[in-house]
Amino acid sequence: MNVGILENKHMKPFINEDFLLQSETARHLFHDHAESLPIIDYHCHLDPKMIADDYQFSSITELWLGGDHYKWRALRSNGVPEKFITGDASDWEKFLKWAETVPYTLRNPLYHWTHLELKTCFGIEETLNAGNARRIYDKCNEMLRSREYSARNLMQRYNVETVCTTDDPVDSLEYHVRTREDGFKVKVLPTWRPDKAMAVENPVAYRKYIETLSRVSGVEISSFRDVVDALQARHRFFSEQGCRLSDHGIEEFYNETFTDAEIENIFGKVYERGQELDSVETAKFKTAMLLEFGRMDAESDWVQQFHYGPIRNNNTRMFKLLGPDTGFDSIGQFCTAKNMAGFFDRLDCAGKLAKTIIYNINPSDNAMVATMIGNFQDGTAAGKMQFGAGWWFLDQKDGMESQMNTLSLLGLLSRFVGMLTDSRSFVSYPRHEYFRRILCNLIARDVENGEIPESEMDRVEQMVEDISYYNAKNYFRF
Amino acid sequence: MNVGILENKHMKPFINEDFLLQSETARHLFHDHAESLPIIDYHCHLDPKMIADDYQFSSITELWLGGDHYKWRALRSNGVPEKFITGDASDWEKFLKWAETVPYTLRNPLYHWTHLELKTCFGIEETLNAGNARRIYDKCNEMLRSREYSARNLMQRYNVETVCTTDDPVDSLEYHVRTREDGFKVKVLPTWRPDKAMAVENPVAYRKYIETLSRVSGVEISSFRDVVDALQARHRFFSEQGCRLSDHGIEEFYNETFTDAEIENIFGKVYERGQELDSVETAKFKTAMLLEFGRMDAESDWVQQFHYGPIRNNNTRMFKLLGPDTGFDSIGQFCTAKNMAGFFDRLDCAGKLAKTIIYNINPSDNAMVATMIGNFQDGTAAGKMQFGAGWWFLDQKDGMESQMNTLSLLGLLSRFVGMLTDSRSFVSYPRHEYFRRILCNLIARDVENGEIPESEMDRVEQMVEDISYYNAKNYFRF
Amino acid sequence: MNVGILENKHMKPFINEDFLLQSETARHLFHDHAESLPIIDYHCHLDPKMIADDYQFSSITELWLGGDHYKWRALRSNGVPEKFITGDASDWEKFLKWAETVPYTLRNPLYHWTHLELKTCFGIEETLNAGNARRIYDKCNEMLRSREYSARNLMQRYNVETVCTTDDPVDSLEYHVRTREDGFKVKVLPTWRPDKAMAVENPVAYRKYIETLSRVSGVEISSFRDVVDALQARHRFFSEQGCRLSDHGIEEFYNETFTDAEIENIFGKVYERGQELDSVETAKFKTAMLLEFGRMDAESDWVQQFHYGPIRNNNTRMFKLLGPDTGFDSIGQFCTAKNMAGFFDRLDCAGKLAKTIIYNINPSDNAMVATMIGNFQDGTAAGKMQFGAGWWFLDQKDGMESQMNTLSLLGLLSRFVGMLTDSRSFVSYPRHEYFRRILCNLIARDVENGEIPESEMDRVEQMVEDISYYNAKNYFRF
Repeated sequence: MNVGILENKHMKPFINEDFLLQSETARHLFHDHAESLPIIDYHCHLDPKMIADDYQFSSITELWLGGDHYKWRALRSNGVPEKFITGDASDWEKFLKWAETVPYTLRNPLYHWTHLELKTCFGIEETLNAGNARRIYDKCNEMLRSREYSARNLMQRYNVETVCTTDDPVDSLEYHVRTREDGFKVKVLPTWRPDKAMAVENPVAYRKYIETLSRVSGVEISSFRDVVDALQARHRFFSEQGCRLSDHGIEEFYNETFTDAEIENIFGKVYERGQELDSVETAKFKTAMLLEFGRMDAESDWVQQFHYGPIRNNNTRMFKLLGPDTGFDSIGQFCTAKNMAGFFDRLDCAGKLAKTIIYNINPSDNAMVATMIGNFQDGTAAGKMQFGAGWWFLDQKDGMESQMNTLSLLGLLSRFVGMLTDSRSFVSYPRHEYFRRILCNLIARDVENGEIPESEMDRVEQMVEDISYYNAKNYFRF
Repeated sequence: MNVGILENKHMKPFINEDFLLQSETARHLFHDHAESLPIIDYHCHLDPKMIADDYQFSSITELWLGGDHYKWRALRSNGVPEKFITGDASDWEKFLKWAETVPYTLRNPLYHWTHLELKTCFGIEETLNAGNARRIYDKCNEMLRSREYSARNLMQRYNVETVCTTDDPVDSLEYHVRTREDGFKVKVLPTWRPDKAMAVENPVAYRKYIETLSRVSGVEISSFRDVVDALQARHRFFSEQGCRLSDHGIEEFYNETFTDAEIENIFGKVYERGQELDSVETAKFKTAMLLEFGRMDAESDWVQQFHYGPIRNNNTRMFKLLGPDTGFDSIGQFCTAKNMAGFFDRLDCAGKLAKTIIYNINPSDNAMVATMIGNFQDGTAAGKMQFGAGWWFLDQKDGMESQMNTLSLLGLLSRFVGMLTDSRSFVSYPRHEYFRRILCNLIARDVENGEIPESEMDRVEQMVEDISYYNAKNYFRF
Repeated sequence: MNVGILENKHMKPFINEDFLLQSETARHLFHDHAESLPIIDYHCHLDPKMIADDYQFSSITELWLGGDHYKWRALRSNGVPEKFITGDASDWEKFLKWAETVPYTLRNPLYHWTHLELKTCFGIEETLNAGNARRIYDKCNEMLRSREYSARNLMQRYNVETVCTTDDPVDSLEYHVRTREDGFKVKVLPTWRPDKAMAVENPVAYRKYIETLSRVSGVEISSFRDVVDALQARHRFFSEQGCRLSDHGIEEFYNETFTDAEIENIFGKVYERGQELDSVETAKFKTAMLLEFGRMDAESDWVQQFHYGPIRNNNTRMFKLLGPDTGFDSIGQFCTAKNMAGFFDRLDCAGKLAKTIIYNINPSDNAMVATMIGNFQDGTAAGKMQFGAGWWFLDQKDGMESQMNTLSLLGLLSRFVGMLTDSRSFVSYPRHEYFRRILCNLIARDVENGEIPESEMDRVEQMVEDISYYNAKNYFRF
């Protein structure tokens, strides 16, 4: 291009201190009020064993590409054969394919994440491409060999204060125990994610799961009531281990009417007789189960999270090859507002509505969710009901801005508990930085436009600090 | 904060003359073409009795917080106990809680509305907070004691030309009559809102309502046909009282097929025998009733309005305590496009499609509605079918911009009948100012960008005046 | 207005060289990398006979208003009686009504399209209105009489390289043959659009269609299998004539389970016995048919296109007068994500998933579609699955930006095959220019903001060229 065209612009590194901060106010808010606050990563998918073991990564390919289905999707979209994604190509070959793909991800969050991670983790300020791939690969791998780059040290590098992993009720939590007893400074807490206890779609797998639950809990199981007792025992155990959150991955909300007898019959059908349930039976069962989980959470004063709306494993051929969570899920469409309202209403009527965070995956639901939470704000806690941060496909600049704008307009942004990584990776923490930059830039725009008066800067500064850190601290009370 | 950072910005009051006007063109359009036009508030929920009585408010708490479920929701979201919202706390305590909450509403329309109202009604330029609450409370209350702040004088203060209240067919309209006969300069007209005539979900309440209708109309009712006759009589009465609009609050559109005999059976079932209807019967009944209402409106050359899409009274516990319209409604999800098209098509085929305004509550429906109206524009009047202004949760800056952008792209913004308050409050009129500022700023942006040629400024100016005032004047012909 | 207000702005013609280009970077990208590239218009509705005949237009009314239901809708919305739209008014009267309406279309894409077409086709830089209508009408008509304005010369004027028309399987393609044999420099290729082969809703019309298909294909038809054989023969014929794309206009996606015997029964019911199908039978039939079409396309290495989501012919009265495609269609609402996923999964499992472009009409589906394509990117070709350009009501600046932003965030914009006109008009090609300006402006904004590093300008420039031209060239391989 004609370089003259841009000659009057200063040439800074891409990820410079003012990345995404488009005004003086934005820079002030970020640098003076957000940047240095610790990270509370209250929902992630880190492997607790890797933390307990203080795992050392063999290569940047393992660290970066090992389980990252965002990158896998981008590689496939770019025409890269599966061999170089999840196949038997070498670590270097896989890294090279990624480096070749990166320039094609311009405007995708991966482009920003990639360079934020290279910069904050490895000090690399170049943009990755095929030309510099080998040099960067070798440099990162060398750094990864030092103790500084162990799992725990990576977490400390990013000023992480607390993380909540995602765990099954039957999990022993032994790695959480070991990590805690080791005296690791970062709090590593479990999260109760009982999806398998509701997965009645597959009677064989369900039976196996319930048998494990019985063994782990010491509760003999021959009825739905027994299942609840067994889960309640595990719930207590999770509480004892510092658990403060539950999480549910569901397609849509369920709010069927049922009797106890019906649920026992349904349980008998799927568990004792191993029969497939019809869709109404499944929905009744899930309603009953989720109401029990909601009750347990309320009684333990936990926060319950609902991640709803994706359709999963849409590619049967690849599911058979690679299993779930390999990049073949997408955004679903459900008219679930009435069930959502009805479900929370039942818990509320029973006096058992815990603090709640709802995460949607279809951005068309944003306004619905942001107004839904208002129905159940009961004055017992500021922001008791939360519209969750932009999740999964929405975890990017536009998604974040849209979630925060919608929450602002239809609720109180000031009370938002903020960002989480939802990540499997030990180098995703710059997403908190990314979020905070976007937050500061967004609010600053209103100040610059005169939509927020300058006289309120103290409040704005506190708001930024609250959303970055203090709201989560007060809300979860780890 | 470091004050130096913003030192080059001028410190104006928050709500200054150029609030929301980000360009020279915007300021020109607003100040020279929109600001001074009268207000036609063609849909609101003012209490006609208060106008007839020229009510004097006892405190700003009554005026501001008495029935404002927007504010109630914000208070609850901010963790304020119900005692201070709808409970038995004193007016001062309630006001204080609101003042404490205001700084937490930054980025919510309440923040702008609050200060627009304080400024335009009471001349207060400070931003409200706990620190100045007492002073502002006392000052406002003192002003409210003067005649200048009576209901009628408030309306005149805001240059209101016409308001349309929202009234049940059985209403005597005595307060409209009294207000008119008093010679009040603002036209106060009724709107025909027959929701209760369709509320067959509750047979007991429905029977009671039909009995009242019979008494008021002087029509003996023993069939659906009689109901229609009775309503027709009331429709004529409303016409005589200057009514020019109907309004329907519905969850979704109905377009069932039915025979007259079926409808009579359904009516007999719910009215004579007091039995609950199933969902198909209910939908058939509502289809039939709405077709009759549509016919009446067409024959009287009224404008029919449809407010659709919310789910209401989602919090059973609070509904039992406080009843409807207390802040527990939210945005629903309905795939209602086909029914909407089919319903209007039936009226159109019968030559009975009145001028129509459709208001959606889920912003995901914006594009659908904006294209739906195009199906029934028939060249008899410019903008015969209208995509209604951002309603309820969408009555804010983003909602307005989104509605106007969608209408612009998929229809003719030039023919838009513009803003209404939909409010229960006598101090909501600054929302017209808010709307006009946003309108001017939005269109000006296109002029500044070169997307509208400067040579068209005359047309742009006329467009601003039309949307602010003249389109409504010509469309409703009060 | 006070002219002084805007006096510091330069007065350029409306459609000037920098129209829509708001930054130096945008201007550089457009002028140096997009502007001069040829046009591949891979989906349009041009009449092949008019190209074969090198048609000469009798007036600008015929050229502009003859079949343009966008303009018809705007006229109706503006209160123009049907006489002046599709009725028996003179060409001049119709043109005048359009000229009167144009100033009311400010902010609608018609305003930009109209003036882009006047400028690029006729060299007219004024904005059209009632005052200059006669002069412009006469001038355009005079120009249209010259050979320079024949159908073919119009296409060459706009640097068109390839167009794909939209054709029924029973079409003889004689005009495509004639045009090719004439040695016309623009490639004019057919597209396989077999909607009528699936239109079982109307048994009479369906029987007639199948009889034509039998005659044209030379295949005797007495079973569904025969229908498939006949269509396969036509598919081969289309391939021989250079066809590289199919296209399907559907309300929603279908993914029913069925057996061969069921489909034969359904076919017998509708074809042999002329009976109406119920909705499940219809959906089963369409599933079966679309799977066959998908298979054929995969085996021929074509690209299959799906345009889904509108609801059509919503105005019965006008449908009876004017037939389909006359401006009475609008945006529908369908929860079709699961069927869409399931349908493509079946093709993929069978190894028969062709390159695919999905076009949605409801913008609320954007994110769903943009993630759906990711499920079936299989690494065999970059961007194998495509999220189609903003279609129909979404074919405007906001629609394009939204489609490109969503694709950017959830997929790879770099691999997008870009713009098409979808038009019936020989003067719609400036929509490619419009698209390219918007594309350049959009990407440039990220460069200006620092969201794309300046160091990547080579990649950005290539990306612009790819989306404007090269991606389509490589993807379709005409």
